[in-house]
Amino acid sequence: MAYPSTVKIVEVGARDGLQNEASVSTEDKIALINGLCEAGLKHIEAGAFVSPKWVPQMADSLAVINGVSVAQDVSLSALTPNLKGAEAALTANIKEFAIFTAASETFTQKNINCSIEQSIDRFKNVMELAQQHDVKVRGYVSCVLGCPYEGDIEPEAVLRVCKQLLALGCYEISLGDTVGVGTPNKVKSLISLLLQHIPADKLAVHFHDTYGQALANIHSALELGIATIDSAVAGLGGCPYAQGASGNVATEDVIYLLQGLGIDPQIDLERLAKAGWTICRALNKPPVSKVSLALQAKCSS
Amino acid sequence: MAYPSTVKIVEVGARDGLQNEASVSTEDKIALINGLCEAGLKHIEAGAFVSPKWVPQMADSLAVINGVSVAQDVSLSALTPNLKGAEAALTANIKEFAIFTAASETFTQKNINCSIEQSIDRFKNVMELAQQHDVKVRGYVSCVLGCPYEGDIEPEAVLRVCKQLLALGCYEISLGDTVGVGTPNKVKSLISLLLQHIPADKLAVHFHDTYGQALANIHSALELGIATIDSAVAGLGGCPYAQGASGNVATEDVIYLLQGLGIDPQIDLERLAKAGWTICRALNKPPVSKVSLALQAKCSS
Repeated sequence: MAYPSTVKIVEVGARDGLQNEASVSTEDKIALINGLCEAGLKHIEAGAFVSPKWVPQMADSLAVINGVSVAQDVSLSALTPNLKGAEAALTANIKEFAIFTAASETFTQKNINCSIEQSIDRFKNVMELAQQHDVKVRGYVSCVLGCPYEGDIEPEAVLRVCKQLLALGCYEISLGDTVGVGTPNKVKSLISLLLQHIPADKLAVHFHDTYGQALANIHSALELGIATIDSAVAGLGGCPYAQGASGNVATEDVIYLLQGLGIDPQIDLERLAKAGWTICRALNKPPVSKVSLALQAKCSS
Repeated sequence: MAYPSTVKIVEVGARDGLQNEASVSTEDKIALINGLCEAGLKHIEAGAFVSPKWVPQMADSLAVINGVSVAQDVSLSALTPNLKGAEAALTANIKEFAIFTAASETFTQKNINCSIEQSIDRFKNVMELAQQHDVKVRGYVSCVLGCPYEGDIEPEAVLRVCKQLLALGCYEISLGDTVGVGTPNKVKSLISLLLQHIPADKLAVHFHDTYGQALANIHSALELGIATIDSAVAGLGGCPYAQGASGNVATEDVIYLLQGLGIDPQIDLERLAKAGWTICRALNKPPVSKVSLALQAKCSS
């Protein structure tokens, strides 16, 4: 039960977050990503190359990625669900592709209109293109702790998809609790099973905070040696399945946890919070991060 | 690392919560406590017998406690910092007194204007009166994981105060992370030390969620066998040290955690959330509970 000595944070606010918020300007997105870099984040999901008909919020991803000023050691990633998207992403400074499937058949059908098997087949040409251009590919698996349609999901179903994505060539799998229904016991059961087959350094947790459980779940994952955590500054994104509910766990809250545990993620928490305040002003909503609100309260007192 | 089979929830929203909110009417408070009882809560902090000059929000505690309709198996408690308060509490249907001190000398000085030692001395006559009337006394220790003035607090300092309160006759000690700065490693260090000297069934955790860490901290306490948790419906109370920041962990979020862990606290989560929505309407603020917001979103969708 020793914590990992270092933790990699994958900041998903600019993509997974803003994709589920009201539209903001290209300039606001560029300022957000620049602010995240200044706070010390090294792994930033910057956009999605998908049909603007389906996801209008991400229509300017190429302009955003071409507009940011990031240091050499920052890796920008983008969602590339198909060959067309991957080809578009290659025209920008993208070092990593992201592909998405789920551990729930019903969710996959409703979300991307195919079976899990078909979704993985579809990624083969994306993977080939990535390998030709020396681009890493990250696999996301949704609904690992529950599905809005099917309810409980068997850990074995998650293991099956993870193995397929790794066999396809993904370097890392991000385990998504898409509806935030997990609790620490379920996290431990799932991750313990996965670790019997997959090394910890190939797994990441992507936990939503819809029911307030994300940090407890992340802590349990850390205790099992998981050292990559997805999160969104200011808890951007909300929950697409319940308007008004919260979604992505806030990066600020994760950083506070890590610092408290003695794991230094080398992030400037105040700068990070400020990047969150700026994008929240553009969105005209308060940050969904208790740490951010506490820092804001201190600043204004 | 086995979870306790049952957990006692001490609902503090009507006192610790409302004490730090805008004033609401006596009727609103009565409706809140009745609603909490209907949701299944059995241990409810219902008021405080303190000077209305210091805490005007609690000036009507006697009327509130006399006005509620609670079943025989519900225990109402009240804060009784001195003999005068305890005598007043006895005139109401109070089955339990609560007394407060802290593990930080500076906090005790600034909060109740005496040393820790003096604060415990002052409770002796309250304890005698309680024993004469067969009333249980609960001891609260603030700042067990950190102090707004002193920063880190040594676990040994907490142990010392706990032992003194138990020697005085308290049947249970509630360990307060008053500023919400704790993380699970610190919780484990503190509770592991305390358990070398004090049985788990004499300890409760009272964790604030100012930095979003409360549920992770509560989960770590549960893993060590702690089976009594203080929380406030809708996260009532805020943080007295940072306006706009959150305070008490929300009962709804705790119940969701417990249910997920397979511990049935025998609380009707929807009724509980509704009691929270009602008092939040009176306070004209949204609930500070992710579970409550998610249930509200589901109800309105």
